[in-house]
Amino acid sequence: MQQGQMAYDRAITVFSPDGRLFQVEYAREAVKKGSTAIGIRFRGGVVLISDRKIRSRLVEQNSLEKIQLIDDYVAAVTSGLVADARVLVDFARIAAQQEKITYGSLVNIENLVKRVADQMQQYTQFGGVRPYGVSMIFAGVDSIGPRLFDCDPAGTINEYKAVSIGAGRDAVTAFLEKEYKEDLDEKEAVSLGIRALRASVEEGQEFRPPEIATIVEGSKFKIYTREEVEKAVQNA
Amino acid sequence: MQQGQMAYDRAITVFSPDGRLFQVEYAREAVKKGSTAIGIRFRGGVVLISDRKIRSRLVEQNSLEKIQLIDDYVAAVTSGLVADARVLVDFARIAAQQEKITYGSLVNIENLVKRVADQMQQYTQFGGVRPYGVSMIFAGVDSIGPRLFDCDPAGTINEYKAVSIGAGRDAVTAFLEKEYKEDLDEKEAVSLGIRALRASVEEGQEFRPPEIATIVEGSKFKIYTREEVEKAVQNA
Amino acid sequence: MQQGQMAYDRAITVFSPDGRLFQVEYAREAVKKGSTAIGIRFRGGVVLISDRKIRSRLVEQNSLEKIQLIDDYVAAVTSGLVADARVLVDFARIAAQQEKITYGSLVNIENLVKRVADQMQQYTQFGGVRPYGVSMIFAGVDSIGPRLFDCDPAGTINEYKAVSIGAGRDAVTAFLEKEYKEDLDEKEAVSLGIRALRASVEEGQEFRPPEIATIVEGSKFKIYTREEVEKAVQNA
Amino acid sequence: MQQGQMAYDRAITVFSPDGRLFQVEYAREAVKKGSTAIGIRFRGGVVLISDRKIRSRLVEQNSLEKIQLIDDYVAAVTSGLVADARVLVDFARIAAQQEKITYGSLVNIENLVKRVADQMQQYTQFGGVRPYGVSMIFAGVDSIGPRLFDCDPAGTINEYKAVSIGAGRDAVTAFLEKEYKEDLDEKEAVSLGIRALRASVEEGQEFRPPEIATIVEGSKFKIYTREEVEKAVQNA
Amino acid sequence: MQQGQMAYDRAITVFSPDGRLFQVEYAREAVKKGSTAIGIRFRGGVVLISDRKIRSRLVEQNSLEKIQLIDDYVAAVTSGLVADARVLVDFARIAAQQEKITYGSLVNIENLVKRVADQMQQYTQFGGVRPYGVSMIFAGVDSIGPRLFDCDPAGTINEYKAVSIGAGRDAVTAFLEKEYKEDLDEKEAVSLGIRALRASVEEGQEFRPPEIATIVEGSKFKIYTREEVEKAVQNA
Amino acid sequence: MQQGQMAYDRAITVFSPDGRLFQVEYAREAVKKGSTAIGIRFRGGVVLISDRKIRSRLVEQNSLEKIQLIDDYVAAVTSGLVADARVLVDFARIAAQQEKITYGSLVNIENLVKRVADQMQQYTQFGGVRPYGVSMIFAGVDSIGPRLFDCDPAGTINEYKAVSIGAGRDAVTAFLEKEYKEDLDEKEAVSLGIRALRASVEEGQEFRPPEIATIVEGSKFKIYTREEVEKAVQNA
Amino acid sequence: MQQGQMAYDRAITVFSPDGRLFQVEYAREAVKKGSTAIGIRFRGGVVLISDRKIRSRLVEQNSLEKIQLIDDYVAAVTSGLVADARVLVDFARIAAQQEKITYGSLVNIENLVKRVADQMQQYTQFGGVRPYGVSMIFAGVDSIGPRLFDCDPAGTINEYKAVSIGAGRDAVTAFLEKEYKEDLDEKEAVSLGIRALRASVEEGQEFRPPEIATIVEGSKFKIYTREEVEKAVQNA
Repeated sequence: MQQGQMAYDRAITVFSPDGRLFQVEYAREAVKKGSTAIGIRFRGGVVLISDRKIRSRLVEQNSLEKIQLIDDYVAAVTSGLVADARVLVDFARIAAQQEKITYGSLVNIENLVKRVADQMQQYTQFGGVRPYGVSMIFAGVDSIGPRLFDCDPAGTINEYKAVSIGAGRDAVTAFLEKEYKEDLDEKEAVSLGIRALRASVEEGQEFRPPEIATIVEGSKFKIYTREEVEKAVQNA
Repeated sequence: MQQGQMAYDRAITVFSPDGRLFQVEYAREAVKKGSTAIGIRFRGGVVLISDRKIRSRLVEQNSLEKIQLIDDYVAAVTSGLVADARVLVDFARIAAQQEKITYGSLVNIENLVKRVADQMQQYTQFGGVRPYGVSMIFAGVDSIGPRLFDCDPAGTINEYKAVSIGAGRDAVTAFLEKEYKEDLDEKEAVSLGIRALRASVEEGQEFRPPEIATIVEGSKFKIYTREEVEKAVQNA
Repeated sequence: MQQGQMAYDRAITVFSPDGRLFQVEYAREAVKKGSTAIGIRFRGGVVLISDRKIRSRLVEQNSLEKIQLIDDYVAAVTSGLVADARVLVDFARIAAQQEKITYGSLVNIENLVKRVADQMQQYTQFGGVRPYGVSMIFAGVDSIGPRLFDCDPAGTINEYKAVSIGAGRDAVTAFLEKEYKEDLDEKEAVSLGIRALRASVEEGQEFRPPEIATIVEGSKFKIYTREEVEKAVQNA
Repeated sequence: MQQGQMAYDRAITVFSPDGRLFQVEYAREAVKKGSTAIGIRFRGGVVLISDRKIRSRLVEQNSLEKIQLIDDYVAAVTSGLVADARVLVDFARIAAQQEKITYGSLVNIENLVKRVADQMQQYTQFGGVRPYGVSMIFAGVDSIGPRLFDCDPAGTINEYKAVSIGAGRDAVTAFLEKEYKEDLDEKEAVSLGIRALRASVEEGQEFRPPEIATIVEGSKFKIYTREEVEKAVQNA
Repeated sequence: MQQGQMAYDRAITVFSPDGRLFQVEYAREAVKKGSTAIGIRFRGGVVLISDRKIRSRLVEQNSLEKIQLIDDYVAAVTSGLVADARVLVDFARIAAQQEKITYGSLVNIENLVKRVADQMQQYTQFGGVRPYGVSMIFAGVDSIGPRLFDCDPAGTINEYKAVSIGAGRDAVTAFLEKEYKEDLDEKEAVSLGIRALRASVEEGQEFRPPEIATIVEGSKFKIYTREEVEKAVQNA
Repeated sequence: MQQGQMAYDRAITVFSPDGRLFQVEYAREAVKKGSTAIGIRFRGGVVLISDRKIRSRLVEQNSLEKIQLIDDYVAAVTSGLVADARVLVDFARIAAQQEKITYGSLVNIENLVKRVADQMQQYTQFGGVRPYGVSMIFAGVDSIGPRLFDCDPAGTINEYKAVSIGAGRDAVTAFLEKEYKEDLDEKEAVSLGIRALRASVEEGQEFRPPEIATIVEGSKFKIYTREEVEKAVQNA
Repeated sequence: MQQGQMAYDRAITVFSPDGRLFQVEYAREAVKKGSTAIGIRFRGGVVLISDRKIRSRLVEQNSLEKIQLIDDYVAAVTSGLVADARVLVDFARIAAQQEKITYGSLVNIENLVKRVADQMQQYTQFGGVRPYGVSMIFAGVDSIGPRLFDCDPAGTINEYKAVSIGAGRDAVTAFLEKEYKEDLDEKEAVSLGIRALRASVEEGQEFRPPEIATIVEGSKFKIYTREEVEKAVQNA
C-alpha cells in the first residue's frame, strides 16, 4: 500500500488523486476470498458450477449452496460476503417478480442484472453506506436465448460465453480462455467447467465435487444430484 | 493488532484494504464472551442447551434464561450482548407472527431466520449504527421437519445438524465433530449436548446444570425442569 | 486507560477490538456516582430504599426524591444523571398508561421494564445520541406477584429477589448476599435494607435516614413518612 | 484541565471515561458568568431578586431586565447567555399557555418547569446541538401554594425554599444557608434577599439596587418600582 | 489566541471549557469590519446614521445604502457581511408583514426584533450552519413611542437611547456616553450623531457625508437627501 | 497562506478567528480564473462584453457564449466555474418567469438579482454544500430604466454604471474608473468597453474580438454579429 | 502532488485555496483511463467511434459496447467508470422520454444534455456523494440539424464539430485539429475518425476495429456491422 493511499480509502464518496475508488477495490478483495464459481453457456442452455468449501460435517450442505434460483429461467451464483450475497439474491428475486408482472412471462435477464447492478452502483456513490462485498454470475434463458452475465462490487456488468468469480477466478479464466470452444453441448460444458475448476485447486489440495446446476431452454432450472455431480466429475 | 488496522475499524461502512469489516469482527468478540449454547437435531426434534453463568443467588434465575420461545414450534438461544439479544428475540417473535398471519399455521423457520439475519446484515452496511453484538441459534420444527440454524453479527446463516455459539464454541464444536452420530433419539441428543458442554468447561472450573429445552414434532416447546436437567446431567 | 482505547470510545456506534462499547461503560460510571438504591422482595410485596444525599436545608427534600411512582402498583428508583432519570421515569409512566389501556387493569411489570430497556438499548446502537446515564430499579406487584427488576445503561434487565444500584452497590450487594433470607415479611425486609444501606456508608460518614417505599399486594404504593422511616431505622 | 479531557469534551453525545458530559459542564461556566439571581419563598408568596449589571446609561434599563413574567402567577429569572435565555423564556410562556388550555386556569408550576427542563435535557443527549448556556429560577403560586424551582443546563431541577444562580451563587447560598428562617413575611424575605445579594458583591465594588419582583397568592406578579427597590434596600 | 482554543472554535455547537462560543465571537469580528452605524432616539422619533465606505464612482451609491426600510414605521441599519445582512433585512420585512396581518396596523417593534434575534440565536445552537456575520440596529415608532434596538450575531438584543455598531462602535459609544442628553429634538439628535460619527474617523482620514434617515411619529420613514445631509453636516 | 488558516478554511459553516469565510474567498479564486466580462450602462440601455477564450476550432463558438438571455429585457454574463454558471443562469430564468407571472410584464431586475444572490448566500451559510464558484453581471431594462448589477460567490450584490468580473477585472476597472463618462450613447459605451477589455490583455497576448450584446429600452436583447463586433472593434 | 493539497481534496464540497475542486479533477483521472471515443459531425449527420478494449474472447463483445442509443435520433458514447456510465445513460434515456412527452416528437439535444449535465453538477456541489467518474459525447439530429456535445464530470458541456474523450483524447484532438474539414460527407467523417483513433494508438500496440455508429437526418441510429467496420477501416 502506498504512503498517501490511506487518505482516500475510507470514504466511499471520495476519489483518489489517480481517479480510483479504494473502497470498491477493497470490496473486491472480499470477493477474492470467496468460493470459486463458474458459468458456461452451451447450445440451448447455461451451466453454473460452484466450488464447495470444506466445512464441518455438522453443517447441512444445502445451506451452504451458492447457486440460487432467481426465477423459473434465471439462476445466480455468488462469491464474497455471504450475508451481502443473500440480500442481493433476494433483491434480484423481487426485481424478477416485478419484471414479470410488468412485461410478461419471460424475464429479460439483461434488464434484471442491470437492476441489481444499479443497486450496487448506488452504494459506491453515496455516503453512509459501504459497497456490497459480492460478485455475482447470472445465468438463464430468455427470449434471446441462453445468457450469462457477471456483476461486481462496482456495479459493472458484462455478458460472457464463459466466466468465473471468486478465489480461483484467475486460474479458471486462464483455463477457459485456452479450452473454451463454441457450440458445446451440456455434457461438454459441464465437463469443461469441472476441469476448469480443478485447474484452480492449488497443488496438494483436495478437489471436492462442486455444486452444478443448469438452465436449459424449455426445461427450467435443474440442480445436479450428488450422484449426477460425481458421475460428471468422473467423466470430466 | 496490526499497525494500519486502526484506520479502518471504526466505521462500519468501511472495508479494510484486505476486504474485511473490522466492526463485524469486533462484534463477534462480544459473542465470544457470551455464555456457551448448543443446538442438536435428533430424530423428530431439536434440543437447545445453554450454559448458566454463575450469578448472585439474589437474581431470579429465570430472568437469565438464554433459551427463548419465538413461536409454538420455534425457539432461539442467544450469546453476546444481553440487551441486543432481547431486541432481536422480540424482532424474531414479531416476524414469526407476521409469517404465520401471511402464510398459515406453521412458520417456515428458514424464512424466519432470514428475516432476522437481514436485519443484522443491514446494521453492517449502513452508517450511523453498529452491528448487533449477538449470535443466535434457531431451533424448531416446520413442514420440512426438525431444523437448526445459527446467525452471526454479519447476518450470515447456516443450517446444522449440531452447532454451538459463545465462549465454549470451539471446544464444543470439536467434541461434536468427533461424537455426533446421525439419527439420535432425544435422550441421546441431550446426553451428547451435556457432554459437549462439559467438554468446554475449563479445568478447575465447576460444571453447572445447564438450561435444556426441546422442540419435538407434534408436541411444541418444552423447557426441562431443574429435576429433569439434573437427571439428564447424571445420565449423560 | 489503555493506550489504544481512546480510538474506540467516543462514538457509541463503534465496538472496540475486544468487543466492548466504551460509551456504555462510561455511562455506567455516571451511575456509580449516583445515590445508592436498594430493592428487596418480601412476602406479598416489595420495598424500595434510597439513600438521601446531603443537600442544603434550602432544598425541598421531596424534590430530591429518587423513588417515583410509575403506576398504581409499580414504582421505580433511579441512580445517575438526574435529568436523564426524570426523562426515563416519564417514559415509563406513559408506557404504563399504554400497557394498561391495551391489556387491562394490572400492568405486566416485565413488559413495562422491557419497553424502558428497549429505549435505552436503542441509544447504545444508533449514532447521534449518547446512552442514558442512569440505572433503574423497578418494583411492583402484578398478576404473577411481587416483582423486582433492574435496568442499566446498556438496556440490560434482570429480575431479582434483592438488588442495589448506585455508589454503594458493591457494599450493599455483598451484605445482601450474606444476609438475605427467603420469605421475609415487610418489617424484616425494611430492616434488612436499612442495614444493607448502612453497610455501604463509608467509615466516618454519617448515616442519614433514607427514603423508604413499599408496594404490597392489594394496597398500592406507600411512601414511609419521616417518622416511619426513623422508627424503622431505630428498629433495624 | 487534564491531559486526556480534550478528547471527550467537544461532542455533546459523548461521555468521558469517568462518566461526565463536559459540554454540559462548560455550559455551566457560561452561567457562572451571568448576573446573580435569587429566589426566596415566604408566607403566601415568592420573591425574585436579580443583580443589575452596570451598563451604559444609553441602554434602556428595562431591556436588561432578567425577571420575566411567564404566566399570571409564574415568573422566571435567568442567568447565562442572554439569547438562549430569551428563547427558553418564550418556550416556557408557550408551555404555560398549553398547560392552561389543557388543565384549566392555574398552571401547575412543577409540570411547567419539567417541560422546560426536558427541552434542556434533550440538548444534552442528541448530536448536532449544544446545551443551553442558561440556568433559570422559576417562582410562582399554584394550587399547592408558593413554589420555587431552579433548572440548570443539564435539565436538572430542584425545588427550594431559597435558591441562587449566576456569578454570585456561592456567596449568596452560603449567606442564605446561615440566615434563612422559615415562615418569613414578604418584607423579611425581600430584606434577606437584598442582604444576600450584597454579600456576593466583591469588596471594593459598588452594590447597585437590584430588580425585585414578587408573586403573592391572590395578587399576581408585581415588579417593584425603582422607589420601592430603593426603600427596600435602605430597610434591608 | 490561546493554545487550546483551536479545539473548540470550529463547531458552532460546542462550548469552550470556559463557557464561550468561539464561532459567535468570530462572527462579531466580521461585524467589527463593517461600516459604522448609529441610532439615536429623540423627542418623537429616531434617527439612523451610517458611514459611507469609499467605493468606485462606478457604483450606484444607493445600492450601497445600509439604512433599509422594514415597514412604514420601522427601519434598520446593518453592519457586517453584506449578503447576510440582506437576507436578515428580508426576514425582518416578512416578519413585519406577518405581525401587521396578525395584530393590526402598527408593528410592535420589540416583537419584530425578537423574531429576527431568535432566527440568529438558532444559528448559534444548531450544527450545520454558521452564525450570521451581522449586527443590526432597529429603529422605529410603535404604540409605545420611538424605539431603538440592536441585535448581534449571538441573537442578543437590547433597547437603547443611543447605540452604535460596526468598525467605529467603540469611539462612537464613548462620544455618545459623554455627549448624549435626554429630550433632544431631531436637529440636535442628527447633529449629535454626525459629531459622534466624525469622532470615530481616524486621524488623517476624510470624513464623508453619511447616510441619514429618520422615523418621526405620524410621518413615517424619511431618507435625507444629499443636500439635507450636507447641510446637517455643516450645522453639526 | 498563514500557518493557522488551514484549520478554518475547509468547512463553509465556520468563521476564522478574524471573521472571514475562507471557502467564499477560495470560490472567488475560481472566478479570478474565469473569462473577463464587462457591463456598461448608457443612455437608454446597457451593453455586456465578454472576452472569448481561445479554444479549438472544433468547438462551436456559440456553445461557449458567456452572455445569456435571462428574460426579454434582462441578460447576464458569468465568470468562473462553467457548470455552476449554467445552473445559476437557469435558476435566474425560472425566477424571472415567476416574477413575471406574479407581478406583470416587466421584471424588476433588482428583485431578480436578489433572488439569485439569496440562493448563493444560502450556500455560504449551510453545511453540506460549497459556495457557487461564479460571479455574474446582470444587465437589463426595467420600469426604472437601464440597470446593471453584479453578484459574487458570497451573494453580495451592487448596482453599477460600469462593472467588470473575471480574470481581467482589476485592469478593466482601473481603465473604466479613469475613462467612464456619464451619458454615453450605445456606440460610445461599446467603444469604451472594447478599449477597457483590450487594456486587460497582457502584453504579448492577442486581443480577440469579444462577445457583445445590448439591451436597449423598447427593443429587447440583441447579440452583435461577428461583423458588427469586428466593426465595433475597429471603431473603438 | 503539492504538500498542502491533501487538506482540500477529500470533500467534494470544499474549494482549495486557489479555487479548485480536487474531487472533480480526480474524477477526470478516471475518465483518462477510459476507452477513447470520438464524435464527428458531417453533412446531415453525426458519427460516433469508440475504441474497443482487448478483452477475453469469452466476453460477449456487444456487452462492452460504449455507444448507446438514447432516443431515436440521439446516441451517446461514454468513457470512465463503466457502472457510472450505465446509470447516466439510463438517466439520459428517461430524460429524453420526458422531453418527448412534454415537447413533442423530436428531442432538443441541447436541453437533454443540459439535464444530464445538471445532474452531474449537483454531485460536485453537495456533500455525501462523489462526482460521476464519466465523460460523455452526445450525438444526434434535432430540429436545428446534426449536433455534437460533450459533458465532463464537472457538468461542463460544449458543442463541437468534432470531439474526443478518454485515454486517447489528446492525440485524437491534435489529429482532428489538423485534419478536420468542414462539410464532410459520412464516408469522409468515418474515415477521418478512424485515422484519428489510429493516431492515438501508441506505437507497438495493435489497432483494433472500433465501434462505429451514425445518426443521419431522416434515418435514425445505425450501428455499423463488423463487416462495415472492417471495410471502413480498410478504406480509411
